[in-house]
Amino acid sequence: MSNHATAPESALRHRVYRQLEPVSRDAYGLSPANRLIVTLIVLSVLAAVVESEPLLAAGHESVLHAFELACGVVFLVEYLLRVWVCVENPAHGPGWRGRLHYMRSAAAVLDLVALTPLVTSLIGGEAFVLRFVRLLRLLRLARFGRLSVALTHLREAIRSRAFELAASLWIALILLLITSTLMYLVEGRAQPEVFGSIPRAMWWSIVTLTTVGYGDVVPVTAAGRLLAGCTAVIGVGLVAMPTGILASAFSEAVQRHRRREGGGWKDAH
Amino acid sequence: MSNHATAPESALRHRVYRQLEPVSRDAYGLSPANRLIVTLIVLSVLAAVVESEPLLAAGHESVLHAFELACGVVFLVEYLLRVWVCVENPAHGPGWRGRLHYMRSAAAVLDLVALTPLVTSLIGGEAFVLRFVRLLRLLRLARFGRLSVALTHLREAIRSRAFELAASLWIALILLLITSTLMYLVEGRAQPEVFGSIPRAMWWSIVTLTTVGYGDVVPVTAAGRLLAGCTAVIGVGLVAMPTGILASAFSEAVQRHRRREGGGWKDAH
Amino acid sequence: MSNHATAPESALRHRVYRQLEPVSRDAYGLSPANRLIVTLIVLSVLAAVVESEPLLAAGHESVLHAFELACGVVFLVEYLLRVWVCVENPAHGPGWRGRLHYMRSAAAVLDLVALTPLVTSLIGGEAFVLRFVRLLRLLRLARFGRLSVALTHLREAIRSRAFELAASLWIALILLLITSTLMYLVEGRAQPEVFGSIPRAMWWSIVTLTTVGYGDVVPVTAAGRLLAGCTAVIGVGLVAMPTGILASAFSEAVQRHRRREGGGWKDAH
Amino acid sequence: MSNHATAPESALRHRVYRQLEPVSRDAYGLSPANRLIVTLIVLSVLAAVVESEPLLAAGHESVLHAFELACGVVFLVEYLLRVWVCVENPAHGPGWRGRLHYMRSAAAVLDLVALTPLVTSLIGGEAFVLRFVRLLRLLRLARFGRLSVALTHLREAIRSRAFELAASLWIALILLLITSTLMYLVEGRAQPEVFGSIPRAMWWSIVTLTTVGYGDVVPVTAAGRLLAGCTAVIGVGLVAMPTGILASAFSEAVQRHRRREGGGWKDAH
Repeated sequence: MSNHATAPESALRHRVYRQLEPVSRDAYGLSPANRLIVTLIVLSVLAAVVESEPLLAAGHESVLHAFELACGVVFLVEYLLRVWVCVENPAHGPGWRGRLHYMRSAAAVLDLVALTPLVTSLIGGEAFVLRFVRLLRLLRLARFGRLSVALTHLREAIRSRAFELAASLWIALILLLITSTLMYLVEGRAQPEVFGSIPRAMWWSIVTLTTVGYGDVVPVTAAGRLLAGCTAVIGVGLVAMPTGILASAFSEAVQRHRRREGGGWKDAH
Repeated sequence: MSNHATAPESALRHRVYRQLEPVSRDAYGLSPANRLIVTLIVLSVLAAVVESEPLLAAGHESVLHAFELACGVVFLVEYLLRVWVCVENPAHGPGWRGRLHYMRSAAAVLDLVALTPLVTSLIGGEAFVLRFVRLLRLLRLARFGRLSVALTHLREAIRSRAFELAASLWIALILLLITSTLMYLVEGRAQPEVFGSIPRAMWWSIVTLTTVGYGDVVPVTAAGRLLAGCTAVIGVGLVAMPTGILASAFSEAVQRHRRREGGGWKDAH
Repeated sequence: MSNHATAPESALRHRVYRQLEPVSRDAYGLSPANRLIVTLIVLSVLAAVVESEPLLAAGHESVLHAFELACGVVFLVEYLLRVWVCVENPAHGPGWRGRLHYMRSAAAVLDLVALTPLVTSLIGGEAFVLRFVRLLRLLRLARFGRLSVALTHLREAIRSRAFELAASLWIALILLLITSTLMYLVEGRAQPEVFGSIPRAMWWSIVTLTTVGYGDVVPVTAAGRLLAGCTAVIGVGLVAMPTGILASAFSEAVQRHRRREGGGWKDAH
Repeated sequence: MSNHATAPESALRHRVYRQLEPVSRDAYGLSPANRLIVTLIVLSVLAAVVESEPLLAAGHESVLHAFELACGVVFLVEYLLRVWVCVENPAHGPGWRGRLHYMRSAAAVLDLVALTPLVTSLIGGEAFVLRFVRLLRLLRLARFGRLSVALTHLREAIRSRAFELAASLWIALILLLITSTLMYLVEGRAQPEVFGSIPRAMWWSIVTLTTVGYGDVVPVTAAGRLLAGCTAVIGVGLVAMPTGILASAFSEAVQRHRRREGGGWKDAH
């Protein structure tokens, strides 16, 4: 399909490409190279999570650091290989032009950002922000195998009901403003600390409308409780609407895809 | 269509009308004038929200006041223009009669109410109530573009399932009364402060049936907890029923509309 | 239809019957007599609710007592009239035999129970239990108009999905037992007061599985929190299942009925 | 059908087999022997629950112990009988080979594990772990009557939507990681005790995403509350997705089965 190179280098490049590019394989099975990368991404994220908790990391700092370094090197090699082989994909075009085109794609930029912890772990850096960058690697999973398919379906589901979802969110937002204003008017004098302004009352409002109900902020006056009851009943129905819409749209998208798949598009190569 | 005027004043009026009247344009795209008004409504509501919180407003009072004044003037001009051009809409009839007919419509009354902050900000007034009126402007958004379409669909959805929704609410209300009475009987002696009367027990009941669960009021006796468990299980199912009904009705209303739209009704003019 | 009496007494009885029997009218419109009774039921329940709260009832005790007495007398007259006219309904058969048959029906027994507050308010009685009996009157609403139709639909919906609902409840119950046992094993030593036995851990379990989440009892150990997280995720899905099933079954039942109604069964007389 | 024995022993074995094997009867009605076993399972689990709570068990220890012993003996006899008659089922094959094949099945192993409390109650053992084993008996219910049918449907429902459910769980997991990392970055300094590491922040995250909302851990900074609000809104929708998917799949599986059942498969014998 994209066989416009005959030199041995090109043959090798094509083999590497087929190992690295998820789209060149069946959507569900990953190539061995990609399986390794996915495993390393998951493990390096877990390492970052563990490292943040002193009780878990105590005594294992050097092991975790070495593992992070190893992951960083593998991801660097992966990045360089991807840049090298990207020209196999006709979408990017040939030569360094194609490579630059690839490097400007969202996926490649994310790959590059996910490499920064390697640099900072060598020269030292702020552990706090660093950890966040290491967790960004999680987003790289989005282009592998099943998860990429699932996200495609989810995106399709959201797009097919964009209007309903946006409308529900708008109505929820307006409901949020109205209930928090009313609560501020009704309960503001009794509990100025938590209902003394509209932005403060919004915290209560969102916690109630989503039925999370932490209970750190609750109305104490009779009028406030009456209003809270109405907010809960009306709000529950309206805020839960997007959920129902999204669930059925997602199910539909998957089923639609399954029927199409019957007409096969397994392996492009 | 409604071209029953030939003088230059009338031509101008028609142009202004087409700028202001949302219905005279495609339901999804707003005219430049309306886009400005929607932006100002959103910003003036945000300003009212910010102003209520001393931590945010401190030092910006004069800017916020000036902005509120400017919004008020724009909304006043908009109101006067709408009254002037409303006769272009055949629904209101010609002349001052038509204008009075328009001024008595819900939308126009709301526009007028939303203007009161302008008056009170000039002559001074109670900040507490004033802020609420300023937030009423939010409701004016209901007649612009997508939100007006969404609300039409929601109203249609509610009407198409009016019986199911009303029945669910009735059942929920009766459940609320029964559970709070039982809880008052069971837990009233142990916690007279919060379960010592049926209205007090209702607060617990509504917080539990909607699964908000603040936790400020919880049963402590074994019988009370048994009752609370049953309330949660039975209640969850019955109170969540309207949500499922509303979500599917709303989805249906939007899809029905989309199919009809295929037969076009883009721009009436 | 049931005109097997020609004496003037019988003609009057038939007129009274048509006023009292909801089924003899269109399902949606109530006769004036029934409208009065429904109103009195709602008001007497509200009075019982208000009376239980000293802050609301203070100073109005004699008014509330008089109103309760008046309601009781009306309900007594209604009961006697219903016993008198029930023979008009062929389902009960003629004469005192039919009347005894009617008096043994669930609705008539409920009517009689709802009369006991009248007796006890005259001779004095335990206010605590009395109030509950007064709230039982609420259940009498079940045979009037729309609510009776709604309950019929709900019963039909539950019956049509009896297997799914029973299965979901069974699975939920087993889940409740398993999670509370695990939590008792994991968290019992750390918090013996609230997780020290399986029945105690059940309180936490049911509050978590229904997502009410009061927060009066929460795990504090790492293992307990891990278990609570799994309980919340798995449990939410399984416990919410009956809700989805019931909502769709209820919607279906109403729609089925609406289609049938097209073939008319408005007024039997 | 499986009548490959003619001796009186074999005839008795066949009769016992038809009493014990649920599959040899209609899926809904249980044989008298199985009804006894199901009752004993439920009662022995209830006894284990009661025994764990000193307030309930006090004074009844010897009765509970005797009952547990009796249950254990019945379950032992049942186990031995099942091993004896299993060869009637062609799936296991004849003779001791077939018996060993049966004894290695999951159901038989579970039966054996459920017997260990009998041994330990005779020789004494750790009450804590013992109680858990006794509750495992609950899982034995899975192969009797309606519950076995329901679990078959649930398994079918999960399998038919395996992709959607797995994808939703993956997305939920990634959301969990992202929100807890963000919260750790935003709120970690203000509340190091509960947001000071990613694993700690996860507790808050899972409690919020499932809308349980205990309230033992809540953000206090403005940025933290903004993030919590977004988490609640976005998360509610995504985490609730599997619920909707599972509920509809379960309903479908039951209905599909009901239609097939029309073609009858009541009693294999």
